[in-house]
Amino acid sequence: MNKTIYITRRETFAAAHRLFKTELTDEENFKLFGKCSNPNWHGHNYTLEVVVAGFIDPKTGFVMDVQKLKMIIHEHVISKVDHKNLNIDTEFMNGIIPTAENVVVAIWNQLNNKIHGGKLHSVKLYETENNYFEFKGD
Amino acid sequence: MNKTIYITRRETFAAAHRLFKTELTDEENFKLFGKCSNPNWHGHNYTLEVVVAGFIDPKTGFVMDVQKLKMIIHEHVISKVDHKNLNIDTEFMNGIIPTAENVVVAIWNQLNNKIHGGKLHSVKLYETENNYFEFKGD
Amino acid sequence: MNKTIYITRRETFAAAHRLFKTELTDEENFKLFGKCSNPNWHGHNYTLEVVVAGFIDPKTGFVMDVQKLKMIIHEHVISKVDHKNLNIDTEFMNGIIPTAENVVVAIWNQLNNKIHGGKLHSVKLYETENNYFEFKGD
Amino acid sequence: MNKTIYITRRETFAAAHRLFKTELTDEENFKLFGKCSNPNWHGHNYTLEVVVAGFIDPKTGFVMDVQKLKMIIHEHVISKVDHKNLNIDTEFMNGIIPTAENVVVAIWNQLNNKIHGGKLHSVKLYETENNYFEFKGD
Amino acid sequence: MNKTIYITRRETFAAAHRLFKTELTDEENFKLFGKCSNPNWHGHNYTLEVVVAGFIDPKTGFVMDVQKLKMIIHEHVISKVDHKNLNIDTEFMNGIIPTAENVVVAIWNQLNNKIHGGKLHSVKLYETENNYFEFKGD
Amino acid sequence: MNKTIYITRRETFAAAHRLFKTELTDEENFKLFGKCSNPNWHGHNYTLEVVVAGFIDPKTGFVMDVQKLKMIIHEHVISKVDHKNLNIDTEFMNGIIPTAENVVVAIWNQLNNKIHGGKLHSVKLYETENNYFEFKGD
Repeated sequence: MNKTIYITRRETFAAAHRLFKTELTDEENFKLFGKCSNPNWHGHNYTLEVVVAGFIDPKTGFVMDVQKLKMIIHEHVISKVDHKNLNIDTEFMNGIIPTAENVVVAIWNQLNNKIHGGKLHSVKLYETENNYFEFKGD
Repeated sequence: MNKTIYITRRETFAAAHRLFKTELTDEENFKLFGKCSNPNWHGHNYTLEVVVAGFIDPKTGFVMDVQKLKMIIHEHVISKVDHKNLNIDTEFMNGIIPTAENVVVAIWNQLNNKIHGGKLHSVKLYETENNYFEFKGD
Repeated sequence: MNKTIYITRRETFAAAHRLFKTELTDEENFKLFGKCSNPNWHGHNYTLEVVVAGFIDPKTGFVMDVQKLKMIIHEHVISKVDHKNLNIDTEFMNGIIPTAENVVVAIWNQLNNKIHGGKLHSVKLYETENNYFEFKGD
Repeated sequence: MNKTIYITRRETFAAAHRLFKTELTDEENFKLFGKCSNPNWHGHNYTLEVVVAGFIDPKTGFVMDVQKLKMIIHEHVISKVDHKNLNIDTEFMNGIIPTAENVVVAIWNQLNNKIHGGKLHSVKLYETENNYFEFKGD
Repeated sequence: MNKTIYITRRETFAAAHRLFKTELTDEENFKLFGKCSNPNWHGHNYTLEVVVAGFIDPKTGFVMDVQKLKMIIHEHVISKVDHKNLNIDTEFMNGIIPTAENVVVAIWNQLNNKIHGGKLHSVKLYETENNYFEFKGD
Repeated sequence: MNKTIYITRRETFAAAHRLFKTELTDEENFKLFGKCSNPNWHGHNYTLEVVVAGFIDPKTGFVMDVQKLKMIIHEHVISKVDHKNLNIDTEFMNGIIPTAENVVVAIWNQLNNKIHGGKLHSVKLYETENNYFEFKGD
């Protein structure tokens, strides 16, 4: 009988961002986004948890090799966001306000269909030790 | 297409409590509740995680302003439990044995219908680093 | 009206293991399992989270006594894995490759039907601070 | 040549306390001690780190058996403070205002001269995740 | 007899920064500072630990009110760095390359002589969970 | 004026070990070393903190490049202990009982004189979340 295991891989990255809309003034942006709209940027150490659901392969006892999962996350996410500016440097955030909500959906889209041997189950993003954001694909 | 994001806000508070029933003797209470029935009280640093589910507002990229969520939790929970005695000082625990199970349900009731822009999804309470309690509303 | 509370008890244990199949050479094992196939063993501090779902007993305000849950986990799991070799010393892992996936299912099987007053909901095993594995019984 | 190793044992306990002086009114106590003077008590999960300095015994490779250190801390500290009221239940706090500063000195005094095979080097007490207090014996 | 207690207050802040020298090209800066020289900035959640050494006031049992220490740190440090760009927004970093080493010294200088009732003992800055930097004033 | 900064780099590794002396029986070893003498090995996720003291280079604002420190630790320590058996696989532990005390001294010896731009100040080894061991070179 197949048993579903949920594998979590945790990664971290450091990035700058700013919450703002180009069509608004700095004051209007401040009203909408608070101190996160600082025109000179600020940044975070983000913690990312990627959860993959899959069946145990009886030959290996693995759902998938966690090292392979780590490499997929690095190729499609970490290499594009670590020590970057999410507003300027990260192509997959083009034209998207980099709130944690939008970032976590964009990371889901980066990873979806890239993972073989399991199904992407959820992506969780910690912006600070007190604020986390999770997306499960719907 | 609407996408559901689960936002978590983490808060902490310090409180005293005692598990006991007034109709029982100290010995009977000890048999039922163990060392948590110490007549002179004991206490904890509780950690609280409040999870709200909602759709991303395309205008802001937020489900809701996390600062607003923080203020709601402070107004309806933290201000009533931090540096308090849960048996005596906290009105919303009146007549309820302050087990972590009962506290987490009472906190749910305090927060439910107070959160605009999202739906209360779960409340998780860490009584110690080894014991946590979660309620999802049903 | 009954309300479901999810209680989590966290425990830790230290164990050695090796990922390998006896019918393969060391090289073939290395190709399949990477550095986890080191013939001389390696080990981990595992963190275990056991989640039990149950209704609050109105008489006590408990779902179940967490101290009793702790004792059940110690009797059926910790005493059999702490400071042990999962390949050799742990009877309930006999003939099973001790990947975290297989260990988490085996721990589920050890605990299932042993817990009174609640239903085993999930078992989560942290092999390192970056890799965790969860099983929910199906 | 002798080499000094600093061994740390970490323990936790949950206790109630109140900061106040009997000769003052509640209002005066509030002015002096803030919300920590709540007449109905509050409490904390304290984390305790006990550091012992000693030389490695070449016969065992230990400075001292950490399990023995754990037992000494339990006998002289944890058993007297866990699930207790520091103002009422803990004899070694008699007549002492249970600020973290005073508690950490009192724990030092409880442990000093009780540890064989090493010298008590420092005692650190975390009252919350943001406030810690250390005493080194002078 | 006076006893020295070391009080630690932990705070966090989120900031952007870039390591570079204006007189160098982007390539030269990259050679010197690595990915931290990204011209579009990046950022961190910094954790700050401020340690104050002082004697216990026998009247209160405090070395100093930790809430007052928190307010001093907020006034002189957090308000000037949280959700800011350390290169542009933070006056006390003017003309200083914002490496963690330089930031920790600058924070020491901001706090030194501002703390009454105790002596600034050390300042520790965590740039990530793996890299920390401490300064003790000499 | 030169200012001393203490840089900490944190790394983790997973290893197996056994505490025993070949000239003793299993029973005698158990009496001396407790459950750590299990003949079939056990293991840990060790956390290592390496502290380097040095002056800030005014040209870069660094004491030393933390990435270089990381590489030195990996070359001389992590590559020789991660996913290894400390009794069998790790040459620098040859003939040494792998207690945490002996391991932390051996790691100090591996790193000492390998670090340019700063002086090795201390090495701290966490064997579990409750037991840590520090060596400062004398």
